[in-house]
Amino acid sequence: MGTRVLFAAMAWLIAAPAWAGLPFDPLPPQPPIPADNPQTPEKIELGKMLFFDRRLSVTGTHSCNSCHDLAAGGDDGRSVSVGALGRAGHRNALTLWNAAFHTVYNWDGSAPTLEAQFKAHVVDPNVMAMPSGRYLVSRLERIPGYVAAFEEVFGRLDFDAVARAVAAFERTLVTPGSAYDRYLEGEESALSGQARRGFETFIEIGCASCHFWVNLAGPIPGVALKQGEGFYELFPNHPGTAYEKRYRLADDLGRYTITQQEIDRRKWRMPGLRNVALTAPYFHNGSVKSLEEAVRVMALTQLKKRPSDEEVADIVAFLHSLTGPFPTIELPRLPPSPGTSVLDGHDDHQE
Amino acid sequence: MGTRVLFAAMAWLIAAPAWAGLPFDPLPPQPPIPADNPQTPEKIELGKMLFFDRRLSVTGTHSCNSCHDLAAGGDDGRSVSVGALGRAGHRNALTLWNAAFHTVYNWDGSAPTLEAQFKAHVVDPNVMAMPSGRYLVSRLERIPGYVAAFEEVFGRLDFDAVARAVAAFERTLVTPGSAYDRYLEGEESALSGQARRGFETFIEIGCASCHFWVNLAGPIPGVALKQGEGFYELFPNHPGTAYEKRYRLADDLGRYTITQQEIDRRKWRMPGLRNVALTAPYFHNGSVKSLEEAVRVMALTQLKKRPSDEEVADIVAFLHSLTGPFPTIELPRLPPSPGTSVLDGHDDHQE
Repeated sequence: MGTRVLFAAMAWLIAAPAWAGLPFDPLPPQPPIPADNPQTPEKIELGKMLFFDRRLSVTGTHSCNSCHDLAAGGDDGRSVSVGALGRAGHRNALTLWNAAFHTVYNWDGSAPTLEAQFKAHVVDPNVMAMPSGRYLVSRLERIPGYVAAFEEVFGRLDFDAVARAVAAFERTLVTPGSAYDRYLEGEESALSGQARRGFETFIEIGCASCHFWVNLAGPIPGVALKQGEGFYELFPNHPGTAYEKRYRLADDLGRYTITQQEIDRRKWRMPGLRNVALTAPYFHNGSVKSLEEAVRVMALTQLKKRPSDEEVADIVAFLHSLTGPFPTIELPRLPPSPGTSVLDGHDDHQE
Repeated sequence: MGTRVLFAAMAWLIAAPAWAGLPFDPLPPQPPIPADNPQTPEKIELGKMLFFDRRLSVTGTHSCNSCHDLAAGGDDGRSVSVGALGRAGHRNALTLWNAAFHTVYNWDGSAPTLEAQFKAHVVDPNVMAMPSGRYLVSRLERIPGYVAAFEEVFGRLDFDAVARAVAAFERTLVTPGSAYDRYLEGEESALSGQARRGFETFIEIGCASCHFWVNLAGPIPGVALKQGEGFYELFPNHPGTAYEKRYRLADDLGRYTITQQEIDRRKWRMPGLRNVALTAPYFHNGSVKSLEEAVRVMALTQLKKRPSDEEVADIVAFLHSLTGPFPTIELPRLPPSPGTSVLDGHDDHQE
């Protein structure tokens, strides 16, 4: 009997996957919901309309979906986005898929919540370029369907309510059930042999020391980090590589640009890896066009490792297992401003 | 018996609506389908993906839906659109809802089919700004899901097949069953009293002499006009009004810019009126912001009429009855180019 227990334990040890005991968790079907902005079906539907509505940009050209395309990777596939005024920003658009599992937003952690991220982008001259939140509200006040929906959902129509509605919709943008998730849940065959080798290499060379837990972006909300607290890392960690020069990786000072504190120089909020195969190009400046190259750059600049071609291919195969599945989204019908334009002359030419 | 028949005939005469005998028809549920591009579910689904795919623009910023927003009026709500290179065009984006009931496309009739309209917009530097159709195809060839879908649907992937797929999807964008349609089908109460008065005034002052038949845009395809033939009218018809100057209505020479023939000077393809309440601003240059003003401008410049405020309000009420309903559209999942970007450096900045 004692022998049988021992054998069973040995069998378990042999079968135990490389990640056993490490902080890897399948994506929960629901992200944390802030107590002050509970989800309701009506609020989510209102947020979806706003998300797809180009009238949220000053020129009527850009909706949230323009740069966070939910038909694709939740980003725009560009190195940097072009906003309503035709100006390019200087950071790569982050995916909104599973963004609700982060604790801070933007590459520099400048927004503590999805609501704050939305508000900042509405008035950013490189994004929606609205003169003010009040200006957006005054535009929405001229669209009867929005007035009625905000009255029903919030009892008011103000910038704060707009942000809450959009964030509520964004909290539905989750992709549990990837091959990786199914593998973690015990479906061994969900990952190919190559992807499993890639997962082991991902752990062994040290990627997993930062890319762990549900979003592979560090500590999960509500456990080690409160909402608004960030998990930041130095990038490049090992300065002076050829990659750094080629891809201008050290030009942007990251979180320092927000805090002006030396400790934040070239610190970046840990990006998640879910759906990373769909979000090329890579890094804060979108300078690296392929996932293979991104893996090599990260290995050398962060870990001082030069993985072999085979190891890179294995890791990439693993990263592909983090894709989808995606929920079905029905295109909303946007409430009209019948027989009139609400763009007030911002539509006559490019400004 | 003879008396009863006479009374019945008199009752019919009294009850006969103002439009009886005039060429007004409810919108059929299906538009004409060209023999060389039959509809199939797979082709329509492929066309929908392409329609929502920003990779069809050189910069990856614009999909067809960017300026023909199917969550809204099938246009972009702007006077003129801004294309992939940040350049504004000089004509107002036309709605794609019910476009399949037209016989020529663009304000100047420069495209004989939806397929041709698509191809022209792909390479127009003010729209998608692709270097060539071949360039678009070479980009799509790097997206495995498209390669497989084109192989299945067409047995080939070329510019012509891309245009056919998109046009097939566009032929599903129809909105039968508006209040106006139901009224024509005998549901008297579908129109308010005001809208019915507006319909009568619309006929009496002469709007209906051009705005008739299924799309209120003149002869229907396959009957009086073959595909590729256009129904053009002079605009402004009565030159020299204050409106003409204020809204610069005579600056653009319309179809003349295509044909260079005197007879085409300021000739325009008749725009449809379905969903017109959702497509402000109005006219080829998008200079008129409200439907009320558009009715006044048309009455004076085309018919030398100055309808009263009440008559204008009635006509506008009638025009509102031409709205929707709209089919449900599920946002497609776009086929990825996993782990890589297909934008080839067109994404680094605004060009």
